Amino acid sequence: MSVGVIERLGRRIRLGMVGGGADSIIGETHRVAFRVDGLYQLVAGALSIDPEIAAASARAELLDPERSYLDFRTMAEREAQREDGIDAVVIATPPQTHLEIAVEFLRRGIHVICEKPMTRTAQEARELVEAVEASDRLFVLTHCYTGYPMVRQAREMVRAGALGEVRLVEAEFSSGDPGVAREPEDPAQRHWRFRAASMGEAAILGEVGSHAHNIAEYVTGRRATRVAARLDTIAQRREVYDNAYLTVEYEGGAIGRLWSSYVAVGQEHGLSFRIFGDDASLEWRQEEPEVLWHRALGGPATALTRASDGLSPASLRATRFRPGHPEGYALAFANLYRDFAALIAGERDDEGLLPTAEDGLATLRLIEAATRSNDAGCRWEPLGAEAGVDG
Amino acid sequence: MSVGVIERLGRRIRLGMVGGGADSIIGETHRVAFRVDGLYQLVAGALSIDPEIAAASARAELLDPERSYLDFRTMAEREAQREDGIDAVVIATPPQTHLEIAVEFLRRGIHVICEKPMTRTAQEARELVEAVEASDRLFVLTHCYTGYPMVRQAREMVRAGALGEVRLVEAEFSSGDPGVAREPEDPAQRHWRFRAASMGEAAILGEVGSHAHNIAEYVTGRRATRVAARLDTIAQRREVYDNAYLTVEYEGGAIGRLWSSYVAVGQEHGLSFRIFGDDASLEWRQEEPEVLWHRALGGPATALTRASDGLSPASLRATRFRPGHPEGYALAFANLYRDFAALIAGERDDEGLLPTAEDGLATLRLIEAATRSNDAGCRWEPLGAEAGVDG
Amino acid sequence: MSVGVIERLGRRIRLGMVGGGADSIIGETHRVAFRVDGLYQLVAGALSIDPEIAAASARAELLDPERSYLDFRTMAEREAQREDGIDAVVIATPPQTHLEIAVEFLRRGIHVICEKPMTRTAQEARELVEAVEASDRLFVLTHCYTGYPMVRQAREMVRAGALGEVRLVEAEFSSGDPGVAREPEDPAQRHWRFRAASMGEAAILGEVGSHAHNIAEYVTGRRATRVAARLDTIAQRREVYDNAYLTVEYEGGAIGRLWSSYVAVGQEHGLSFRIFGDDASLEWRQEEPEVLWHRALGGPATALTRASDGLSPASLRATRFRPGHPEGYALAFANLYRDFAALIAGERDDEGLLPTAEDGLATLRLIEAATRSNDAGCRWEPLGAEAGVDG
Amino acid sequence: MSVGVIERLGRRIRLGMVGGGADSIIGETHRVAFRVDGLYQLVAGALSIDPEIAAASARAELLDPERSYLDFRTMAEREAQREDGIDAVVIATPPQTHLEIAVEFLRRGIHVICEKPMTRTAQEARELVEAVEASDRLFVLTHCYTGYPMVRQAREMVRAGALGEVRLVEAEFSSGDPGVAREPEDPAQRHWRFRAASMGEAAILGEVGSHAHNIAEYVTGRRATRVAARLDTIAQRREVYDNAYLTVEYEGGAIGRLWSSYVAVGQEHGLSFRIFGDDASLEWRQEEPEVLWHRALGGPATALTRASDGLSPASLRATRFRPGHPEGYALAFANLYRDFAALIAGERDDEGLLPTAEDGLATLRLIEAATRSNDAGCRWEPLGAEAGVDG
Repeated sequence: MSVGVIERLGRRIRLGMVGGGADSIIGETHRVAFRVDGLYQLVAGALSIDPEIAAASARAELLDPERSYLDFRTMAEREAQREDGIDAVVIATPPQTHLEIAVEFLRRGIHVICEKPMTRTAQEARELVEAVEASDRLFVLTHCYTGYPMVRQAREMVRAGALGEVRLVEAEFSSGDPGVAREPEDPAQRHWRFRAASMGEAAILGEVGSHAHNIAEYVTGRRATRVAARLDTIAQRREVYDNAYLTVEYEGGAIGRLWSSYVAVGQEHGLSFRIFGDDASLEWRQEEPEVLWHRALGGPATALTRASDGLSPASLRATRFRPGHPEGYALAFANLYRDFAALIAGERDDEGLLPTAEDGLATLRLIEAATRSNDAGCRWEPLGAEAGVDG
Repeated sequence: MSVGVIERLGRRIRLGMVGGGADSIIGETHRVAFRVDGLYQLVAGALSIDPEIAAASARAELLDPERSYLDFRTMAEREAQREDGIDAVVIATPPQTHLEIAVEFLRRGIHVICEKPMTRTAQEARELVEAVEASDRLFVLTHCYTGYPMVRQAREMVRAGALGEVRLVEAEFSSGDPGVAREPEDPAQRHWRFRAASMGEAAILGEVGSHAHNIAEYVTGRRATRVAARLDTIAQRREVYDNAYLTVEYEGGAIGRLWSSYVAVGQEHGLSFRIFGDDASLEWRQEEPEVLWHRALGGPATALTRASDGLSPASLRATRFRPGHPEGYALAFANLYRDFAALIAGERDDEGLLPTAEDGLATLRLIEAATRSNDAGCRWEPLGAEAGVDG
Repeated sequence: MSVGVIERLGRRIRLGMVGGGADSIIGETHRVAFRVDGLYQLVAGALSIDPEIAAASARAELLDPERSYLDFRTMAEREAQREDGIDAVVIATPPQTHLEIAVEFLRRGIHVICEKPMTRTAQEARELVEAVEASDRLFVLTHCYTGYPMVRQAREMVRAGALGEVRLVEAEFSSGDPGVAREPEDPAQRHWRFRAASMGEAAILGEVGSHAHNIAEYVTGRRATRVAARLDTIAQRREVYDNAYLTVEYEGGAIGRLWSSYVAVGQEHGLSFRIFGDDASLEWRQEEPEVLWHRALGGPATALTRASDGLSPASLRATRFRPGHPEGYALAFANLYRDFAALIAGERDDEGLLPTAEDGLATLRLIEAATRSNDAGCRWEPLGAEAGVDG
Repeated sequence: MSVGVIERLGRRIRLGMVGGGADSIIGETHRVAFRVDGLYQLVAGALSIDPEIAAASARAELLDPERSYLDFRTMAEREAQREDGIDAVVIATPPQTHLEIAVEFLRRGIHVICEKPMTRTAQEARELVEAVEASDRLFVLTHCYTGYPMVRQAREMVRAGALGEVRLVEAEFSSGDPGVAREPEDPAQRHWRFRAASMGEAAILGEVGSHAHNIAEYVTGRRATRVAARLDTIAQRREVYDNAYLTVEYEGGAIGRLWSSYVAVGQEHGLSFRIFGDDASLEWRQEEPEVLWHRALGGPATALTRASDGLSPASLRATRFRPGHPEGYALAFANLYRDFAALIAGERDDEGLLPTAEDGLATLRLIEAATRSNDAGCRWEPLGAEAGVDG
């Protein structure tokens, strides 16, 4: 695949980045991810709203100083004018800014790689979906866990009917390391994801809940349709919800649960899913991502492992090394970049492997329905359309 | 402990059994459990309502034929009259019969060891609680999983504050072997637990949900107070619920979830709990019962193992062998018998190690509140008192 | 099976015990094991050479005081004369006493259940083999781990060719809890197994190595034929070897390793095996005895679990409870008693499920060859015959 | 760290590669590894001895065609002359070629990154050690598993005395996937590692045994001093050994075992170690590299995890992501490149984190001693000096 992209283009893809400066964890994660396969070259950026951090970050990435911008609008405008301008941009800023940034680059003909949650509201998400549709550019939402080979294997097995009819969908992203389980003594030290002003009181559903929701839909191929929710604020001095229990109905009759938490003390990461059909079940935990447990009714538990014989082509294409050489998180993330590069180079995504703007909208709808349900005492709420828009 | 009982009594405890004949899985389980420590001697029984099975079962247990009874009333009456009559009786019949059998033996001065769920309704459960209180006899509800040393260790750690404030309580008993995941082609082949007429449509909550609920309350020392429930019938041709999702509030402000299922295909047993406090969490799975995972905030995961140095006295007293020699299910069950023998012999249960009639009532109240909640669209329902009774 | 024994005999098997008093861990282990299925009744004993311990132990077991003996010879003589004399005797004394005790009971027509290692020397072991053959009584060596259902499953799979040709045999019993990893400050506090005078310098090979060796031969059905050994004394102040590394050749061309250790600090038990054939491999660890890992060449790892569909009859007959209800160590040990009871009641052991005197002899030959090899600088030594006897 | 290198140099390190063309697994592995942190730029190569593969590989890497060479000597000569010539070269060819290639680049002032095993013979290894010493250039042997954060944590814990005195050292690299467990029908299809002509009959010890040996020495900080070996050829039609059992003495009195295998059927990778001291033990398995098990004498087992609080600085510096985001094999390998970049940029390796030519020599000495021991019937052989050279 990597050879294919270079051969087709005769060069690496030129990439820009908004946000994600040297002080950003997610920025460095994206950089590792797009470096892995050698298909991208970072050539431009508005890496921070702080000019000093922006400049230092640009130097560290060996950017041409004149392509280190102080605002994304200037960057979009200038890069669109250059003959060697960027092909694609990574948006690694807080979610309330994603819509306007994405729209700005899309309308100038630049592909967009966007962090999750996609936007702050379902209304914004709908607008972004429409902007993507109205452009002729590509868009990917970096739900990075969909890049794991064994997640893709699970998806293919569900599609191929290996589970029979899907009945129960258990997913959780329940973390509890000190950084999220406790509020700082000084509220001013709060990360933006713990501020109600940033993403609303239900920010947890965008931050971690979105991954659990997305992976459940990704693997089952079914959208959530109704939700009954219980949202709580548990940590002292916290102003947003930090634990969300959702019971969910899915298309086709499956039901399930989603649990998002920052106060599952002692858990390091906590993303996992279990999908139960009438013939078999699958279980996957992000902390041991090389293994997908398959348990047929009445049969033994089988540990399917990355890159091993008999896996689906979609899973095998997402691996680089032989079985037993753990690929891990960065290479899963890199798979999104590699697949996106293939699309940019003109290949087709016949399998829908990459998370879309529609997926981002689905999550925002879930968040809003969950909030309504919680406010109404756990009443079942349809996801339906976002407020004021026809679905 | 075993020496203590024999020394105090100068003999083994004389035991009778109602139900649990040779065709009964749970009957043989009880027999293994009470044989392990050599503290009991089975001397009487009404082992089956089928006279042939009753007689064959009595022969297999080498009972004196005249102490093999055809009905529990005769048995209670005659044994109460004998000088060498039974000290205690095991009730291993379906739940709708427990109340009258228990009352009959209690009022004749015979201790009662009762299978779960305790009764069919909360109203019956309340009557049984009162009958126990009115008698001077002992009663234990065989929630056998409370006999595991590492469950008791968990309970002691919560009590001692090792978790800080308990915040989240996750428990499940989600099974899916062929025997429960599928209905037989011929409805007449149904086990009584899958008949609405026997325990009502919510039988699953009594059968497996009761264990998850009981273990959550046992370990945390907190009663459930409110519930929001989603009950489903998923397997084809089934007439009772076979999946129950409960969100639960506990005394003291903790919240949690209980999941009971017969359609978690591929899971062999499926009882587990995770308890999260603000300082640490605990995790235990019945299928690996020797290990209790302790994870302190920001600390490494620690695998506490049965019988190892530093465990609580309550846990250590519940073990027989050195660490690394798995004790398993039968010996956990045997711990209930061993502890009950100590009570019969006059020791005191200062720690409340054995499940009580009040615990049984708590489960029946949960079942009824969950049913009301489900019927009302997942509305929050208080457990409160059972219908028509002051709580 | 248990019904079968009682039905055939019309009573329980009458059992005596030599050694194993109230101060003996192994004694109580045997008692739990023979109680589980209700097939035995302990009626006589020479439970300790200390008269007070013997008497207290007898009272705790509710023995008739006149059947509590002070020496095994008197016990054998008197019991053989009684009409209600014991059918079988358990020998739970140190190994250097086994030969004379076993011979005494066998010649008086009493079946023998003997602890391992069988004797102190290969010469004694040969004499015991001959005494068993010369008698018409039954003998079982309590290599208790052979009672685990998944060990028997492994054995059946090897026999049935599921692994193809057996090539590599890895087994270890490497412990390291404080009780064995460190010598007491006062040499007088030493357990007999750490005294050279008791079992020789290579006592570790009889004590724990015998289990690893036995289970390797039991599962593969192949005898060790040559050994190259490295024996070390590692713990301070210790006078016997506490670590043994053996490289072993087996009949049929397989090779492998045996590791026995008391200084594998941090390991609680440490018995495990891995058997590799040219088509597949098996792995089992005593600390998770419910699972047998099966890995076919190029296939996924499969977790075969106790009592599940598709296991061999020999494995299924060794289980009592449904899958997911861990049976553990005591019930594995109980399987030896249950199988031995069936033999006493007249059933046939067509499958050779129970460890024999020949198995005990094989271990003693290994020990002696390993000692010779170590003394000769790890030279390959044939197990051959014991000194002075034709093999 | 990555910022540091770029800041110091003001550019990326210019890298060349010998071998490792598009048809080479190890070549692509190196490329992923050096891309991850963005510190290197591949600018030259003699990527294959096949001119077409060399050219295609160079195009895929976007090399300037005039820097795609057909032989390493021309490459070394020309690159040394260019102002923008390579700083370092990766040697990814078969081992018998390493010495001459390494010497050629070293003497022209180019740093060397060399695949393992370092050379074919101990004599060659000694010459390479001397060549490195005689040059003022840097050399690293890519024993990639030393890059794992939890391997470095283990090393630091041993150094800090967390285990007490090291006593037992168990390491293995026992693989058995179809690619290595079976010979192709047609001997001409053999990989070079299965040809006696390439690395000798004991090639397995260089290929996989070298990793097990290296990691044992790396973690314990002790060199192997004597070995007793059993080498076998097990797979049909194979002409080299495919199973090696080594018992090993280490400096300071520790003993241990090394197992290298291609016929451990069903194992995917198989590298692991267990180190036992008198106070505690450590266990690590490459297939779950995020976890280092620490078991103190009499204490619970503790799962130390990558990037978590309390780890050693050497371990924490080798991580990029928060705990619970598995870093895997490629990022472990990348750590060697990152550390080597820091050395090139002028930082000091005060901790000896990178495998050296001396380490490579130690392995070759082990291989030769093991071969002598096996030929002499498992006799203990000192590693001593390589033949004809003073050690």
